[in-house]
Amino acid sequence: MQSETSRIEAFSDGVFAIAITLLILDVRVPPSTAGNLFAALIRQWPTYAAFLISFSFIGLMWVNHHRLFNHIRRSDNGLMFYNLLLLLGVTVVPFPTALIAAHYNAADRTLSAAAFNGTYFVIAIFFNVLWRHAVRGDLLDSATREAADSISRQYTVGPVAYLVCFGLTWVSVPVSLLANIVLAVFFALPPRTKTAKHAPQMQGATK
Amino acid sequence: MQSETSRIEAFSDGVFAIAITLLILDVRVPPSTAGNLFAALIRQWPTYAAFLISFSFIGLMWVNHHRLFNHIRRSDNGLMFYNLLLLLGVTVVPFPTALIAAHYNAADRTLSAAAFNGTYFVIAIFFNVLWRHAVRGDLLDSATREAADSISRQYTVGPVAYLVCFGLTWVSVPVSLLANIVLAVFFALPPRTKTAKHAPQMQGATK
Amino acid sequence: MQSETSRIEAFSDGVFAIAITLLILDVRVPPSTAGNLFAALIRQWPTYAAFLISFSFIGLMWVNHHRLFNHIRRSDNGLMFYNLLLLLGVTVVPFPTALIAAHYNAADRTLSAAAFNGTYFVIAIFFNVLWRHAVRGDLLDSATREAADSISRQYTVGPVAYLVCFGLTWVSVPVSLLANIVLAVFFALPPRTKTAKHAPQMQGATK
Amino acid sequence: MQSETSRIEAFSDGVFAIAITLLILDVRVPPSTAGNLFAALIRQWPTYAAFLISFSFIGLMWVNHHRLFNHIRRSDNGLMFYNLLLLLGVTVVPFPTALIAAHYNAADRTLSAAAFNGTYFVIAIFFNVLWRHAVRGDLLDSATREAADSISRQYTVGPVAYLVCFGLTWVSVPVSLLANIVLAVFFALPPRTKTAKHAPQMQGATK
Repeated sequence: MQSETSRIEAFSDGVFAIAITLLILDVRVPPSTAGNLFAALIRQWPTYAAFLISFSFIGLMWVNHHRLFNHIRRSDNGLMFYNLLLLLGVTVVPFPTALIAAHYNAADRTLSAAAFNGTYFVIAIFFNVLWRHAVRGDLLDSATREAADSISRQYTVGPVAYLVCFGLTWVSVPVSLLANIVLAVFFALPPRTKTAKHAPQMQGATK
Repeated sequence: MQSETSRIEAFSDGVFAIAITLLILDVRVPPSTAGNLFAALIRQWPTYAAFLISFSFIGLMWVNHHRLFNHIRRSDNGLMFYNLLLLLGVTVVPFPTALIAAHYNAADRTLSAAAFNGTYFVIAIFFNVLWRHAVRGDLLDSATREAADSISRQYTVGPVAYLVCFGLTWVSVPVSLLANIVLAVFFALPPRTKTAKHAPQMQGATK
Repeated sequence: MQSETSRIEAFSDGVFAIAITLLILDVRVPPSTAGNLFAALIRQWPTYAAFLISFSFIGLMWVNHHRLFNHIRRSDNGLMFYNLLLLLGVTVVPFPTALIAAHYNAADRTLSAAAFNGTYFVIAIFFNVLWRHAVRGDLLDSATREAADSISRQYTVGPVAYLVCFGLTWVSVPVSLLANIVLAVFFALPPRTKTAKHAPQMQGATK
Repeated sequence: MQSETSRIEAFSDGVFAIAITLLILDVRVPPSTAGNLFAALIRQWPTYAAFLISFSFIGLMWVNHHRLFNHIRRSDNGLMFYNLLLLLGVTVVPFPTALIAAHYNAADRTLSAAAFNGTYFVIAIFFNVLWRHAVRGDLLDSATREAADSISRQYTVGPVAYLVCFGLTWVSVPVSLLANIVLAVFFALPPRTKTAKHAPQMQGATK
């Protein structure tokens, strides 16, 4: 049972591990000929910001991926393909993150922020497609299956919220980025009280 | 039983995870001094195309590798070496992919396309060698063993089809690349109807 | 039981494997046009030193991570987040290591050494936070649970010792680096005699 | 039992997967402005040679590592440290491989070949240290334990043979490299006939 998805998870862990560490490659040591080291280190703050944001967000997506697969008991072809689609989204994340970090103070920051927020909108759709396939294909464990409709409604919140966030880019870039961070924290939080009953996959790891 | 090949699969997953993410390293953030960002992003479309194609094709090969190993129950020295050979092919894939993407509009696109199509011809041979070794060495599970001859015939289709695709390069580069994509989709599809009975390894993950 | 943390460990292993090999990327082959090869190889000693130190220290942290998780039997949301925090620290290590190696003979070596020693102070805090969460959340196996208070006291030594080491940077850079190495060896050693009874997690792998 | 070394193996697999794919990063796509593509591709043959040799040799070391751990049933601190030492050697391999490939036709090829052959001498010692620790620490399974003395004698062949190979560098670089390749093939072959009885760890994967 459990083992049917274990290789999908192992491969996914490898891809997540690479994606989450990718932007540390952009954090370079200033050469000793570059003058004042402290100033040189400060100057490259966008690379630190990009690494930290990309690490945090991919980390949160890993947590959500882990929770989701905690409740998938069977595997099929569709699951492998939709999971590959999600991993494609995860692998791309470092690029728009580095883009907005490098162009935040430049003329093109709206375009960069749109790429950044748009990426999360697409990933939210990929998460939904994966979840709905698991429901339709009867791949869930029995406890999760009962709550599937209720959970599906919750999952719909993701793409809608990220679409609003994407639209906010043209109203105000800082507000849209703040909204993106708030959404990341919101989806990372485990549900409590009433919701918890209906959303076993949300407490995945505790189960 | 199952565990005999588990470390081979874990190591393979690591190599696949690295190969599939490799070309995202070529997708660079244009510097903020590069003028119009949108134009700069569009200009580097070959790096996006190379990443997407290499991610998709290596993803499909991972699915096929996963299906194959779902039906291998025992391991021996030959299996480890032929698997290394296959992983060598997978690791190489990003290079000819980046090559054809960079030279598609240049004078040398036939050479680049030949390298690209030729790589898949070689990988199809490596998949065959691995499969035939598993048959000969009696490494399959019992259900698969019965259908082995029938499956072997199907496996032969791969090298032949990719050889035709390779030859098409000198007829028409676009047609040969299209044929390559069609073949990738074809081998990714799980078999249905009559074929399914004879090809249990093709539905690997559902089993 | 065991399997509840297994995916956290697998993902962590992937991140550790990337972080530990990262600085080999900075060890470049001198071009054959660079004149005397021996001299060219000697000249780039800081890249060898950085790789060796970063490999050794991340290796020791992997051992400690492995020991710690040997005694964690259950998982929850907090564990995943605090583990991500620790992995963030591990991924950062190669950067200050390459920094001090490149600037050891330059004007800014105090700043570089402070970054290096400070990183380990922060990681020691992250290890403590992870351990204390496991105690509070009742995630340990029963044998470890009994000795938890005693072990928590031992864990407190880490941040205090690394804070002293951090402070030593402004007294003498070589002494502070030596202290850092001594601490790494000290925390890598398995406890013997009396301590062993109270610190089962320290002999993790032997259990 | 089995599971005691499983995380050591998983981490090792990650490090092996990175080391084995490392030199594909040096295989670059010639820019479309570089003139004749075929000539440009041929010109960079040392990067292909370095990748192929490093992939093959690290692949064979992975096979040997896999065989060795197939017969280790228990883990302790020493095993983790000696395994880290071996992984350090494996991670270094791509560097001297790229060195000899780049300098084979240059004035310094003796130095490069010495670095290459010397690396395998050191790794052979690390393999011995790991094996002897497993014997002394009583970490082997019972079948292997009986044949331990006989196997230890066989293991001694490695460092001696690679020391001869290292010495040959100053006699003739091509001969020393050929000897190195012959040794790699020799250690990759599973033992047959009489030896097989005394060397169960050599057929690891078949067992």
